[in-house]
Amino acid sequence: MHVSSEQRLDGDVRERAFTLDGIPGFLWTPAAASPSAPVPLILLGHPNLGLDRMYPRLVGRALHAAADGFATATIELPGSGARPRLPALDRARAELRRVMQAGEPVTDDIIDAVVLPLVEQAVPEWRSALDAVLALPEIGGKVGYSGGVIAIGVRLALVEPRIAAAGLFAGSFVPRVTVEEARRVTVPLHVLLQWDDEGNDRQAALDLFDAFGSEEKSLHANMGGHTGVPAYAGDAAARFFTRHLK
Amino acid sequence: MHVSSEQRLDGDVRERAFTLDGIPGFLWTPAAASPSAPVPLILLGHPNLGLDRMYPRLVGRALHAAADGFATATIELPGSGARPRLPALDRARAELRRVMQAGEPVTDDIIDAVVLPLVEQAVPEWRSALDAVLALPEIGGKVGYSGGVIAIGVRLALVEPRIAAAGLFAGSFVPRVTVEEARRVTVPLHVLLQWDDEGNDRQAALDLFDAFGSEEKSLHANMGGHTGVPAYAGDAAARFFTRHLK
Repeated sequence: MHVSSEQRLDGDVRERAFTLDGIPGFLWTPAAASPSAPVPLILLGHPNLGLDRMYPRLVGRALHAAADGFATATIELPGSGARPRLPALDRARAELRRVMQAGEPVTDDIIDAVVLPLVEQAVPEWRSALDAVLALPEIGGKVGYSGGVIAIGVRLALVEPRIAAAGLFAGSFVPRVTVEEARRVTVPLHVLLQWDDEGNDRQAALDLFDAFGSEEKSLHANMGGHTGVPAYAGDAAARFFTRHLK
Repeated sequence: MHVSSEQRLDGDVRERAFTLDGIPGFLWTPAAASPSAPVPLILLGHPNLGLDRMYPRLVGRALHAAADGFATATIELPGSGARPRLPALDRARAELRRVMQAGEPVTDDIIDAVVLPLVEQAVPEWRSALDAVLALPEIGGKVGYSGGVIAIGVRLALVEPRIAAAGLFAGSFVPRVTVEEARRVTVPLHVLLQWDDEGNDRQAALDLFDAFGSEEKSLHANMGGHTGVPAYAGDAAARFFTRHLK
């Protein structure tokens, strides 16, 4: 983990921009984090729009989490932002756009082609980032995963035993294998669904929620469109992590 | 409003048992409620099992609300508890039981016969109770409605302009007219759904949530079966009322 720059944000939160095996990322830690009082970590997932574009929203989530006593970290997704494009993924996305613009059905095969290569490559990278961040003496305790591409969140919750709780955003395409993996997920889950999100397949989101094997799972459906998650929904997600990671 | 008995509960909450036109009810007020500092009111709905049987759960909700600075009130439903039976309702319930035991479909007509007479008679009674309670100098400000038979909650939210926010429990039969009324409801709504409630028609609950006309509506689906609403779900409902009634 190579720290490329460092600054202090509001509330004395420490922001480190880093690269890890060439992948850019950020780590935010509350002022109180120290080797004698390590703080638990929440991994901040995000859609594949590039870290630069997502930065303002990520910092907002990081500051909120820091106020609750959590460190947060995120890394760039494969093929996004400053990372090399993935031609196969670009082709699959072009096909998805074509199909949607033509009003044709979005088949399971198209969804698989758009999402699964991302999952396959991203999940090992996020696990490596977890290794690197947890090696820091001021970070310790339980780990949560929050938001982003839901198929990545499901895979991480399934294969990464250090993740103790996950907050997922039911707002993207759900591959068939993700539903099967969801049945074997057992960590507590807090699932956000924007009920009136026109770009979202609501029934697919409800079916995925139903599939999760977790004994504790909550679905929070709100209004406000794709990007209009109400502030009180963010507060509820924060309380979920406090309940399970502290 | 005739107060028949009075006692102090934990946390110095004042409980008044009353009758209003022969209908038994309860009023709970926090210690701080006074004519110079009136507190907002939440009406506590409940299933038609009789106030005696529901008393422990109602007191629990009343103490929680009092700690948040709310008065709470409830009255007996028509045909329940110490009130005279309603023969037509009893016949409709017997038919519902017969149909369910025989594994036959529960038709819309049966649902209407079981629920609508209750709505027709209960709603004016709850509005009269609201008149009586709001006439007390230590009660004032906005009014919320919480829980109980969802068709009663929907009708009250629609016809009673003093209700500023409603928390509903999506756990009972939904008559067709209730879905139509829901489209015209505009107050903020917090809807609880027990996802794994075997006695609940989940799709009917989701359809009803979708129908509500309110700009702010949230669906909170949790695990735990019909009576197993998690404590954190109760806390979330309490924050909803604090946000809208304070």
